[in-house]
Amino acid sequence: MKKLLAISAFTASVALAGQAAAFDKINWDMQSTYASSLTQLGTLGKVISERLDKISDGQVQVKFQEPGAIVPALEAFDAVSSGAVQAAWSTPGYWTGKDTALALFAAVPFGPSAGEYYAWIKYGGGKELYDEIYAPYNIKALVCAVIAPEASGWFKKEINSVDDLKGLKMRFFGLGAKVMEKMGVSTQLLAGGDIFPALELGTIDATEFSMPAIDQKLGFYQVAKHYYFPGWHQQSTFFELMMNKDEWEGLGDDTKALIETVCEANVAYGLAEGEAIQFKALQDLKNEGVTIHKWDPAILDALKAAWLEVVEEEKANNENFAKVWESLSKFREGYAEWKAVGYLE
Amino acid sequence: MKKLLAISAFTASVALAGQAAAFDKINWDMQSTYASSLTQLGTLGKVISERLDKISDGQVQVKFQEPGAIVPALEAFDAVSSGAVQAAWSTPGYWTGKDTALALFAAVPFGPSAGEYYAWIKYGGGKELYDEIYAPYNIKALVCAVIAPEASGWFKKEINSVDDLKGLKMRFFGLGAKVMEKMGVSTQLLAGGDIFPALELGTIDATEFSMPAIDQKLGFYQVAKHYYFPGWHQQSTFFELMMNKDEWEGLGDDTKALIETVCEANVAYGLAEGEAIQFKALQDLKNEGVTIHKWDPAILDALKAAWLEVVEEEKANNENFAKVWESLSKFREGYAEWKAVGYLE
Repeated sequence: MKKLLAISAFTASVALAGQAAAFDKINWDMQSTYASSLTQLGTLGKVISERLDKISDGQVQVKFQEPGAIVPALEAFDAVSSGAVQAAWSTPGYWTGKDTALALFAAVPFGPSAGEYYAWIKYGGGKELYDEIYAPYNIKALVCAVIAPEASGWFKKEINSVDDLKGLKMRFFGLGAKVMEKMGVSTQLLAGGDIFPALELGTIDATEFSMPAIDQKLGFYQVAKHYYFPGWHQQSTFFELMMNKDEWEGLGDDTKALIETVCEANVAYGLAEGEAIQFKALQDLKNEGVTIHKWDPAILDALKAAWLEVVEEEKANNENFAKVWESLSKFREGYAEWKAVGYLE
Repeated sequence: MKKLLAISAFTASVALAGQAAAFDKINWDMQSTYASSLTQLGTLGKVISERLDKISDGQVQVKFQEPGAIVPALEAFDAVSSGAVQAAWSTPGYWTGKDTALALFAAVPFGPSAGEYYAWIKYGGGKELYDEIYAPYNIKALVCAVIAPEASGWFKKEINSVDDLKGLKMRFFGLGAKVMEKMGVSTQLLAGGDIFPALELGTIDATEFSMPAIDQKLGFYQVAKHYYFPGWHQQSTFFELMMNKDEWEGLGDDTKALIETVCEANVAYGLAEGEAIQFKALQDLKNEGVTIHKWDPAILDALKAAWLEVVEEEKANNENFAKVWESLSKFREGYAEWKAVGYLE
């Protein structure tokens, strides 16, 4: 009886403790386009899944599913769109086959770094355009992480001039690939796991993938010793939580607020982590005999000129691209005035 | 025993039905050191209060209290320490009377900008030192916002040399004030609302306060037309949620995770907002006849040299200051290597 009372008292206190905070009980799958083992690209997806679980005490389950577990990585868009899967962890840059404007929500060559980019999304009109592009596909997406600059890439030989780029075969992602094509580079997009063997066999001469801490794990340094910076093509990169729009709209306000807040926290979390782990990786890579190069300014100028040509072509091809580019450019113009005076370096 | 089982079963079914996401029902006061009307400095405190309320569906109440509502702003530390108030919204820079090392958790002259600073807190040992300093006061604090660079300040006349600074009377905050003293400036700390009249009456010749969007509201441009940048003394500034440690430790894991996540989201939120609102303010100020100046590099060099003298003095006076400085400096040294190669500008 004593025990019973103790339990009743416990139950009562739990009741008082307010079981009204009733999140929707959901049990979603989140099809990831990155393996969970991949530093930041995958782990940041795991973090949101775990935080949602922890804060909601198990009510809000958004389960991280490895690439291919439900559908292949690059079919996640269609699966979320149709509702076959409720959610996906991805980068908008994977969906340029649906709308090339989505590339501008992933990483912009010679584009903003993380703080400016996220400021544009939230306060410069970015979010509204992002919603507008996804809506016809019945997808609601939230920017759910941003990472520090990527490296420019791994080369088997030194690149001292624009001419040295001509004829190279290189793995490249996103809008940057179109820029490299203009420089006479033959680009192809290989999945992370396929890059090392291609580089080793000589199928490709060079590759970009991600940041030092991530590239290090993929072992490129064993077969290419020249590592170039800065990553002009990805000074910051957004990752997203994609959700089927009907599922999203069916959620209560508190559950929506929880998901939005967990995503926003992930932005700060991922940025801090990315900034913290690169210098150790750079040091390790130097110890492995890698030479860290900075691009010759003349090469960067040529890349930038090529990029501006790509922009004009993409604008002509897609009205959405033109609209997003205009929004981003206008924001950046104003921001540049602030940055020029506000920052010490 | 049967009843006992029944109750257990009930408890289990509640868990299944899913109202079990039971945050602790708390009804805290959060004594703010800034008025809620103050852009970012106050509003970011309101945001966390509102987000906690919304996500928890009213269970987790951390009420924003205007300065003086419970205790005067600068008594918030003692009130949280004793448990007279459960929480406070502040910046660690207000508590240098308790421990000068706390200044290094607020804003560091010639210090890191937001991404690097937050990376140090989370991954460079900052958080552990911050906990260690607060623990003897029975306070648990979380970094709960970071803002963009501040302006260097408002001057009635142009400052073209180090000599022009000598003899000035200036309102100044934090570690930067000690640097200005070394330059021959006579500094005093005035609360936000007291600055304008002092500047107008000539009690002071110059003032720093915050960022363009905030300074604009305080109207300094009406009496001082020379606005200097960059704010070498505050390239980024942390704000904190302070909690009585017993109250914090009494919370369940889900409530703790909620508060931590809301604070981390506020870091991204505040940074984006701060970056987005400055250039419009700069434009408005120019339209009011304000001249935007950048410091002469020789003056910046002199300020930096004075700052390094201040560091040595503070290290000699306080072991904690020396320990925190060492941790931050070590992190910055590594980060500088990454920044030099990773970033485009």
